Amino acid sequence: MPELSKDTTLCISLSGRPSNIGTRFHNFLYAELGIDFVYKAFTTTDIAAAIGGVRALGIRGCSVSMPFKEAVIPLVDRIEPSAAAIGSINTIVNDDGALTASNTDYEAIASLIESHRLEPAASVVVRGSGGMAKAVVAAFHGAGFGDVTVLARNAAAGSTLAEAYGYRWIADDPAPGAAIIVNVTPLGMDGADAGTLAFSPAHIEAARTVFDVVAFPAETPLIRAARAADRDVITGAEVIALQAAGQFARYTGVTPTPDQVQRASAYSRA
Amino acid sequence: MPELSKDTTLCISLSGRPSNIGTRFHNFLYAELGIDFVYKAFTTTDIAAAIGGVRALGIRGCSVSMPFKEAVIPLVDRIEPSAAAIGSINTIVNDDGALTASNTDYEAIASLIESHRLEPAASVVVRGSGGMAKAVVAAFHGAGFGDVTVLARNAAAGSTLAEAYGYRWIADDPAPGAAIIVNVTPLGMDGADAGTLAFSPAHIEAARTVFDVVAFPAETPLIRAARAADRDVITGAEVIALQAAGQFARYTGVTPTPDQVQRASAYSRA
Repeated sequence: MPELSKDTTLCISLSGRPSNIGTRFHNFLYAELGIDFVYKAFTTTDIAAAIGGVRALGIRGCSVSMPFKEAVIPLVDRIEPSAAAIGSINTIVNDDGALTASNTDYEAIASLIESHRLEPAASVVVRGSGGMAKAVVAAFHGAGFGDVTVLARNAAAGSTLAEAYGYRWIADDPAPGAAIIVNVTPLGMDGADAGTLAFSPAHIEAARTVFDVVAFPAETPLIRAARAADRDVITGAEVIALQAAGQFARYTGVTPTPDQVQRASAYSRA
Repeated sequence: MPELSKDTTLCISLSGRPSNIGTRFHNFLYAELGIDFVYKAFTTTDIAAAIGGVRALGIRGCSVSMPFKEAVIPLVDRIEPSAAAIGSINTIVNDDGALTASNTDYEAIASLIESHRLEPAASVVVRGSGGMAKAVVAAFHGAGFGDVTVLARNAAAGSTLAEAYGYRWIADDPAPGAAIIVNVTPLGMDGADAGTLAFSPAHIEAARTVFDVVAFPAETPLIRAARAADRDVITGAEVIALQAAGQFARYTGVTPTPDQVQRASAYSRA
């Protein structure tokens, strides 16, 4: 870590359960690029006062995670389309007290849809209906996909999300056959569901692209099975690195190279 | 600088014109003592929201400088006698959202009066009537001094300060003869008044102890003249180091040794 001074710019994150990922990712790149910034994760029991503090202390950037992504909406001054479209904020930039909000999860997913050259004519099944599923479904819609199915046990959330984009909602697993299958549930995540395969082997076999938004571990059972079947894979680790790079660029005005993002991501997960 | 993590504790300062002194002093001692804290200076145009942010973000300590020392009084939960006595706060400690305020300037001056074995029977002239002069006069009063004169051009502030402790106020330089002369004005400070001697050579000659609260430079014209005349001297650099050490102990629960304070102070001023 370089030495802090009064002129060092602070960026923070706010989440219910802070991890070290963002702190390590951003501080790695500040050092790598010689930028006089420092980043630290915080939590709060008073999100309004915390955002008021961001404004009053001139904290340059604030990454927002669960459970604050919707609560911060009335606390900012301007909301970019990326966040407005899904009613969910994960990034706040402070320009001399004016707070602009965006959603770099949405942007990261849109970017991965593009870089993996996913075809808008392809059929998609998205499992999940939470905040991140909103970003995923909106990004597929933004990329022009017409055949998207939202697969979710939660009927209210699932049908609301699907209908917002003219898509279909189903509660139970469809027959295998979708070209793109996306997991946006905790299935396969470190913890109670770590061993669970989010889609059946038949679904993986039928797909061309397997996308798991779960970032921990990077190699979920779904991703491992997809790699074994030689399918195109998109991992949650890619999403988290890309969205963090988007935040980094907004906070600092500097766009890190793909190689720098990759090394910062590896460092942040170590 | 050691690496930051989500668990690193943040302390800050709030002042109208931040310097690097506190940032360097505290971060030096954190590294020296292996304490997982980080410190950075801030300014604000909204002191209420800034203190709200301290509370909501769990910022452990907040040093307060001009022009916020009185404005923060209604924003804290508890005020220690050191701050209540003079209506001026320079230190806020956050215990799980409960803010306790104190004044380590007062404590540092009281400590220097004791360590220099100043005799309560001695006559004292204090030049100045601002916030720091309040701390000085209150500390002499607290140490039992009865013969204190407040010398101040500002009649309202000077007489109010003097009368609060049953002391005398005068507007013009008295005849030399006071045993302890104290400068709490900007005379001799880096800037427009850098060349000005805060007390005449005759006052210095007549005194036993010469105390200059000006900290930049450490060797003001008054201190240089007092050293040349072989008088006991107390410098603003001592005050600033002691008060910062008092803040450090409150924030971290660790009391640095005099040697550590001295080295941190030298580093902070380098």
